[in-house]
Amino acid sequence: MAGARHLSASQDEEFRAAARSVAEWVANYRERVEEMPVLARVSPGELSALLPRSAPERGGPIEDVLRDLDRLVLPGITHWNHPGFLAYFSSSSSAPGLLAEFVIAALGVNAMLWRTSPAATELELRMVDWLRRLVGLPDGFEGVILDTASTSSFTALLAAREATGLEVRERGLAGRPDLPSLTVYVSEQAHSSLEKAAIAAGLGQRGVRKIPTDDGYRMDVEALRRRISADVETGIRPIMVCATIGTTSTTSVDPVATIADVCEAMNVWLHVDAAYAGPAAMLPEARRHFVGWERADSIVINPHKWLATPMDCSTLLFRDRDAFRSSLALTPEYLSSDTPGVVNLMDYGLPLGRRFRALKLWFLFRQLGAEALREMLRRHLRLAGEFAGWIRADRRFELAAPVPFGTVCFRANAPGTEPKPGTKPPSTKPPGTDPAATNAWNRELLARLNRRGPVFLSHTVLDDRYTLRLSVGSVHTGERHVRKAYKLLCEEYDGLVREGWPALDR
Amino acid sequence: MAGARHLSASQDEEFRAAARSVAEWVANYRERVEEMPVLARVSPGELSALLPRSAPERGGPIEDVLRDLDRLVLPGITHWNHPGFLAYFSSSSSAPGLLAEFVIAALGVNAMLWRTSPAATELELRMVDWLRRLVGLPDGFEGVILDTASTSSFTALLAAREATGLEVRERGLAGRPDLPSLTVYVSEQAHSSLEKAAIAAGLGQRGVRKIPTDDGYRMDVEALRRRISADVETGIRPIMVCATIGTTSTTSVDPVATIADVCEAMNVWLHVDAAYAGPAAMLPEARRHFVGWERADSIVINPHKWLATPMDCSTLLFRDRDAFRSSLALTPEYLSSDTPGVVNLMDYGLPLGRRFRALKLWFLFRQLGAEALREMLRRHLRLAGEFAGWIRADRRFELAAPVPFGTVCFRANAPGTEPKPGTKPPSTKPPGTDPAATNAWNRELLARLNRRGPVFLSHTVLDDRYTLRLSVGSVHTGERHVRKAYKLLCEEYDGLVREGWPALDR
Repeated sequence: MAGARHLSASQDEEFRAAARSVAEWVANYRERVEEMPVLARVSPGELSALLPRSAPERGGPIEDVLRDLDRLVLPGITHWNHPGFLAYFSSSSSAPGLLAEFVIAALGVNAMLWRTSPAATELELRMVDWLRRLVGLPDGFEGVILDTASTSSFTALLAAREATGLEVRERGLAGRPDLPSLTVYVSEQAHSSLEKAAIAAGLGQRGVRKIPTDDGYRMDVEALRRRISADVETGIRPIMVCATIGTTSTTSVDPVATIADVCEAMNVWLHVDAAYAGPAAMLPEARRHFVGWERADSIVINPHKWLATPMDCSTLLFRDRDAFRSSLALTPEYLSSDTPGVVNLMDYGLPLGRRFRALKLWFLFRQLGAEALREMLRRHLRLAGEFAGWIRADRRFELAAPVPFGTVCFRANAPGTEPKPGTKPPSTKPPGTDPAATNAWNRELLARLNRRGPVFLSHTVLDDRYTLRLSVGSVHTGERHVRKAYKLLCEEYDGLVREGWPALDR
Repeated sequence: MAGARHLSASQDEEFRAAARSVAEWVANYRERVEEMPVLARVSPGELSALLPRSAPERGGPIEDVLRDLDRLVLPGITHWNHPGFLAYFSSSSSAPGLLAEFVIAALGVNAMLWRTSPAATELELRMVDWLRRLVGLPDGFEGVILDTASTSSFTALLAAREATGLEVRERGLAGRPDLPSLTVYVSEQAHSSLEKAAIAAGLGQRGVRKIPTDDGYRMDVEALRRRISADVETGIRPIMVCATIGTTSTTSVDPVATIADVCEAMNVWLHVDAAYAGPAAMLPEARRHFVGWERADSIVINPHKWLATPMDCSTLLFRDRDAFRSSLALTPEYLSSDTPGVVNLMDYGLPLGRRFRALKLWFLFRQLGAEALREMLRRHLRLAGEFAGWIRADRRFELAAPVPFGTVCFRANAPGTEPKPGTKPPSTKPPGTDPAATNAWNRELLARLNRRGPVFLSHTVLDDRYTLRLSVGSVHTGERHVRKAYKLLCEEYDGLVREGWPALDR
């Protein structure tokens, strides 16, 4: 039986042939991905309708699977490794990261304990340290690799919760008349994962204080200070402030140093979410955005965002290892191990099973070297700057936020709202425009642009205004892709104008 | 510069060559892994000492990386894909699962939203459904794929917490005089991840009720019922019972049907941890162990344990999708999407980023077929049964627990404690033996066995007695590996006897 043969470890030559086939498929995919539309064009349920209701009883050769991968699956893929993927924050698979994943799966290591793969544990600690040095964080920070920033920030919140001395690990939060409400402070622009973390950790959405931001979408530190003081006065216990370097909507940078002053004065855990922007700290010229982060208790940086590492790879750095261990570590007998003095990575997070993600960073650094990664980051910054320049110079569009990193927020001026030639570009809230109409206009523009195929942009809403986002962060993206995005944007804009969109019946 | 070249998407031929090299490395690794010791022989810090303190500035060719992978990393790997890996619960990389991981990394999809890869979302839902049908769970169960059972059970606990109607999502747990203590019920033999989940969710370790087990290590349902009643009488709010089918120490099976009666009567969420044993429900002859699980509110089954799927792949099945959504789902504007009626997988868990894990199951089912997987499961059951038979027939050893699945718990009878020929084998607690001496004897035996190289077994402690565990669950393990384990075990036993271990000076 074809299926059974694949199960046997002795079928080495058959495996080798299959591995070669898949390697060719992967190389072919990377060559042809640019010809495909970035954003999948299928309708909901389209793949489901093509899939059998039940698993096959008999297996088949890899060639059949690869053929159906092309035929059934690929049309429903939004291609995150397309050079025209300019939406959200990119996550791209560099050659080294991708090849490392193949090796990771071959080794199949679970690095829960040091002994269950010493190399996976030691490489993980060292790779986090290589990254720490590259981004200029001082000695004293160490860390681990988790799957995503959501998990990293949640893990940090659990450590902060325990660091209050309220014995939450032992006694929990519910049914304790001795406990005050617990709160976490983020800016209005912080990532939703912080709110999810607060829900999960039992703080509730009401425990999340969303501090207003200034006109650059940065946390208002005076408002933070007032809010913490007011909370403390009413007996509430602040347990964490999360400052963001590179928020998701606009990549704004909270004033971390001033926030650190507040945290120090108020004795509150400071977590820095640099999941997206963190790798930019490898560039001396971008280091100014990171002032003060070295005072954080914990920091998250995601190599799977802006460091060419395939999903998933989120690094959680911290200064007090014991705060993390004491919030979660538990060793049942069947996981006890008598190797003294080692780090057992299972103690630093909720999941017991841990993939050998460090190997991705090792392949990346070894094959590319730090200098090539800095070049990539500089290229992205330059391309975002160029795109922002085109937007700024074009009466049809306007910038919607500052551009500290590789992400540009902008919107189209709906016809009739463009500034007159020679006049000043409109402020972020131009008087006299109908925001609903402009929002609909931008939404339609984005939908049409994304339907074109070669590029995929995303959106956000800033001050109730629908805003387009172009984010350059993929290892594959070069100048021509950003240029193409601008060209198609202009074409779609002009097309909408020619059509007189919105039509009256809409 | 060598490094920079790798960053360019245009270097297609260079990538193809590198992919071929890695495919050969992987095929070679699988051929030679059996010659290596399963358990790494390095000392703590050995790899760390060989690694540079900082990342290299310049990159290098893949060949250098692969050479150092062999030279530096492999000696520190505990080989989870070695056919002699008989420790813990195995997690092994079948050919299809391994090849799928390569494709997953090439696509690099983040299936957070339906639109960010429709095929990844629809394939995930369908693969969970294929698995559901294979294990005989009724219509009405659906589910998602998460990383590990720890995460799956934690996610279920959050849903159960919210399903109480106590508005925990909105109002949190702390500082609420209206809230009682919340409790979760597990057997003494349940996995530590449930306790971690309770800590993380704010129930505290005190909120975890460890119900005693019977002489087969199964939850004592009468004790459960009494404990829940007593808690309710004192105003405590039970939120979840977790029954385990295949506990970690002995793979014992809690009486799920009776527990389901209790949960129904008491209106408590029933979660079933079948992370390890779940795939065995594909066998009609093993279905008896699963009676009652169809009445659960949530079930976790890990294909990355006993279904030949590389880490990580944990399926969380549930009956009330809304209970999960309402406990955690949050959609910030930058993730809003106007495709109506679709499932957005980010709503079913804490991590926003989600790898395309479903592809591993699709490759697995498509290449092998269900029948070959059943054959694998049957082979494992048969091998465990044979090993248990050898232990039972050998005066030097004794079984320590029933063997419902592929895992055998046993211990050596230290010299002087073996039963006389012709007498009944000792009960689990033979009178007149010194447990401390027997424990030390078994610990030493296991350490020596694992130092031999060809096999790796783990241990647990049952009723204060150190117990050896041999778990057959790897796609690579065949009869000769289990036979080898027994042979080496006998050799080491006899060696210890010859030595007169323990020596007097110990």
